[in-house]
Amino acid sequence: MSSADIGVTGLAVMGRNLARNFARNGYTVAIHNRSYARTQELVDQFGNEGSFVATETVAEFVKSLRRPRKAMIMVQAGTATDTVIEALAEHMEPGDMIIDGGNAHFADTRRREAALRKRDLLFVGTGVSGGEEGALLGPAIMPGGATEAYASLGPMLESIAARAADGTPCCSHVGPDGAGHFVKMVHNGIEYSDMQLIGEAYDLLRRGIGLEPRRISEIFAEWNKGELDSYLIEITAEVLAHTDAETGSSFVDVIVDQAAQKGTGRWTVQNALNLGVPVTGIAEATFARALSSGNVQREAARQLAGPNPAEHEVSEDMIDDVRQALFASKIVAYAQGFDQIAAASAEYDWNIDLGACASLWREGCIIRARFLDRITEAWGANPALGSLLAAEEFSSAIAQTQDSWRRVVATAARVGVPTPGFSSALSYYDGLRSERLPAALIQGQRDFFGAHTYRRIDKDGTFHTDWSGDRSELSL
Amino acid sequence: MSSADIGVTGLAVMGRNLARNFARNGYTVAIHNRSYARTQELVDQFGNEGSFVATETVAEFVKSLRRPRKAMIMVQAGTATDTVIEALAEHMEPGDMIIDGGNAHFADTRRREAALRKRDLLFVGTGVSGGEEGALLGPAIMPGGATEAYASLGPMLESIAARAADGTPCCSHVGPDGAGHFVKMVHNGIEYSDMQLIGEAYDLLRRGIGLEPRRISEIFAEWNKGELDSYLIEITAEVLAHTDAETGSSFVDVIVDQAAQKGTGRWTVQNALNLGVPVTGIAEATFARALSSGNVQREAARQLAGPNPAEHEVSEDMIDDVRQALFASKIVAYAQGFDQIAAASAEYDWNIDLGACASLWREGCIIRARFLDRITEAWGANPALGSLLAAEEFSSAIAQTQDSWRRVVATAARVGVPTPGFSSALSYYDGLRSERLPAALIQGQRDFFGAHTYRRIDKDGTFHTDWSGDRSELSL
Repeated sequence: MSSADIGVTGLAVMGRNLARNFARNGYTVAIHNRSYARTQELVDQFGNEGSFVATETVAEFVKSLRRPRKAMIMVQAGTATDTVIEALAEHMEPGDMIIDGGNAHFADTRRREAALRKRDLLFVGTGVSGGEEGALLGPAIMPGGATEAYASLGPMLESIAARAADGTPCCSHVGPDGAGHFVKMVHNGIEYSDMQLIGEAYDLLRRGIGLEPRRISEIFAEWNKGELDSYLIEITAEVLAHTDAETGSSFVDVIVDQAAQKGTGRWTVQNALNLGVPVTGIAEATFARALSSGNVQREAARQLAGPNPAEHEVSEDMIDDVRQALFASKIVAYAQGFDQIAAASAEYDWNIDLGACASLWREGCIIRARFLDRITEAWGANPALGSLLAAEEFSSAIAQTQDSWRRVVATAARVGVPTPGFSSALSYYDGLRSERLPAALIQGQRDFFGAHTYRRIDKDGTFHTDWSGDRSELSL
Repeated sequence: MSSADIGVTGLAVMGRNLARNFARNGYTVAIHNRSYARTQELVDQFGNEGSFVATETVAEFVKSLRRPRKAMIMVQAGTATDTVIEALAEHMEPGDMIIDGGNAHFADTRRREAALRKRDLLFVGTGVSGGEEGALLGPAIMPGGATEAYASLGPMLESIAARAADGTPCCSHVGPDGAGHFVKMVHNGIEYSDMQLIGEAYDLLRRGIGLEPRRISEIFAEWNKGELDSYLIEITAEVLAHTDAETGSSFVDVIVDQAAQKGTGRWTVQNALNLGVPVTGIAEATFARALSSGNVQREAARQLAGPNPAEHEVSEDMIDDVRQALFASKIVAYAQGFDQIAAASAEYDWNIDLGACASLWREGCIIRARFLDRITEAWGANPALGSLLAAEEFSSAIAQTQDSWRRVVATAARVGVPTPGFSSALSYYDGLRSERLPAALIQGQRDFFGAHTYRRIDKDGTFHTDWSGDRSELSL
């Protein structure tokens, strides 16, 4: 008994691959699943990859772990996770550890961590990104929880994680309680934004210029050699190159154009609204998916007038403008995401190192990109940066791309190709750099209709104008 | 005793003015406040306006009401409301009614209604819009709660409500439980959007063309004579015409340009994310306020590069383009808001009449506008409209304005004036009318990295391509 270094319960594809990853890295891995058939299947198919301890019951599973025990849960987020936590906790002893590698909401992770801490158990909610393949070959891992837990768990996670080009594992302790799941949530939000921006770039090349998917695939493959080098650009080229065997059409043309979502984009935006951090890129991406699935509205809108296409030919000169617009908009999306992490870190006392956080995303995860080296460096060089946009690296990049970016947004508006991501990123950029914003007028309106008061630029205090009277100013 | 037709507890400015409004309309009004001084003050100042019953304790307040009792709460949303409800309920008898006229979240209203129903008490959460002045002279009133409650309460509310030009009171039963507060929430969300769009129009005239506030005030006053005729345009002209007595500057130039918010915009967007309804106009407006208050980011971004202004003169010809862009964007904001109400109505079984809902907003409330007559008619003519944009009235209006709208968004991008509201509304419009969206590519990416599957346009079912293998298609 008690021979396993770590246990994994929940052996759907992500759990199975993580268990194999641990085993392939030399750990003895206890495995457990609600139905034993899956456990047996793992041993039958992959037992030769390393040392597995197949267990049938939760009690047996827990007993098979060396102390302090480390049991990792890979089940559906929500009540399933609570049920499994409770079952494990019943058999555990003080100092043992439960690790949740699912996509939990960080608020649930905070609640669970606090509850288990009272029972002298350690709880680590960790983000795991990289899909099936990442789980097996090296995901990006974003663990939260107590420092004490990371001391013993960290080295194991680091050994199964992806590694950046410089050899650093894409795994480090993000911060206390829900910090890991929070950072994973924002990662997913940025992923939504990245995918939307790529979609808009594709759409501009396709409908704006009139290129075929195969040609666009080549363009993306070319872009992938430059500063846009990233996993999502790479697979976009692959998807666009793919031909549907059945029809002989481009694969992208036979897919129903309704993007689904599993909720992390929504969570990110909802949280950002609570924190008061503008994450317009993620919001527009999340809503663009909702729009695509809005059958009733789309059906009703099919006949709405667009610009006359004949009057709006777009030349191939715009291809490189689109690349630059994509890059600039992507910088904005990351700047917003990091602002959100910084705001949450302050709100929840997490003390998150933003550079370390960017470093985690360099390999293994879905948003992995060459670009993240530059973000890591930017935060490393100046952790007190007020915005990623202000890092010399990125401010000068945008200064160079902005003409292209502005042309693309203007052209899209003229020719009727929707660019919610590009446009909103540009508006954010122009808003942030504005010396004066029309928010002053909004404060004036609010004071007029609701006596909501305002502040003045030339002296401290709160003021109200007697709009329905003599319009004199009252100092409150 | 027991002589009052209705009671109001919570005599801050909104409660006081509603109580006076009831009294001025011939009702005997019991009044109560946590501190009696305010109650006394109301009687001293306004006792001659009608019949008030001043009460000192909750018990006395409740006893002063004729049965079935109607007690209206005008206190802060949140725990204060719960405390007052509990205090009232203790003294009430089956069939009595508690009305919450504060800005409660509709989910709280649902919870409270269900809890009080179990105690045989009626609970009506109602939206009240119009600010202080509206409360006194005739607000728009949006009551939810049971039909039975509306039967006795409705006539009283209708008599104190604003009236549309055709004489219809801006008050009708919205739907069960939280429907009233929900519709008020979306009203406020649309208000955020309206204000943001007006702010962008002002900013384009100010920074884009270079006009002075007084001239812009005249332009808004002129616009207020046409299809933009509305309270918010009217007060914008007033605010922009106002000169700061102390400095002699335009008032708008001495206000700190950071827009505050009290939460209903945020709630609207958070709920829309849950419902999967794209309300990009409200989201951008809410985030624009957050951006304006982001001191750290704005400070960091002050030095970021913008376009060379010398190269981008904007002529006064754009003034009318801006008017048209404002109108088109406003239609989009309302279309999105009504989609959200329709989705919530389906989700919560509220059976909301969208035309009646538009009718409620025609007078009294902050977003009152001539335009709402047209929306009322559009929903009246076809309650099954898939989108407000598809109403002949509005689709043809946009068809006429779209060239201007597109020019404005393009110009703003070129000259560096942020237009998150105008741009996002245009992207929404172009997205909705697109025959094919790049969401197809996003589904392809999702299938590639996460085996999230996709549907095909040519047959039913769910499919997955074996991307890491021979790229054959699996039917699942």
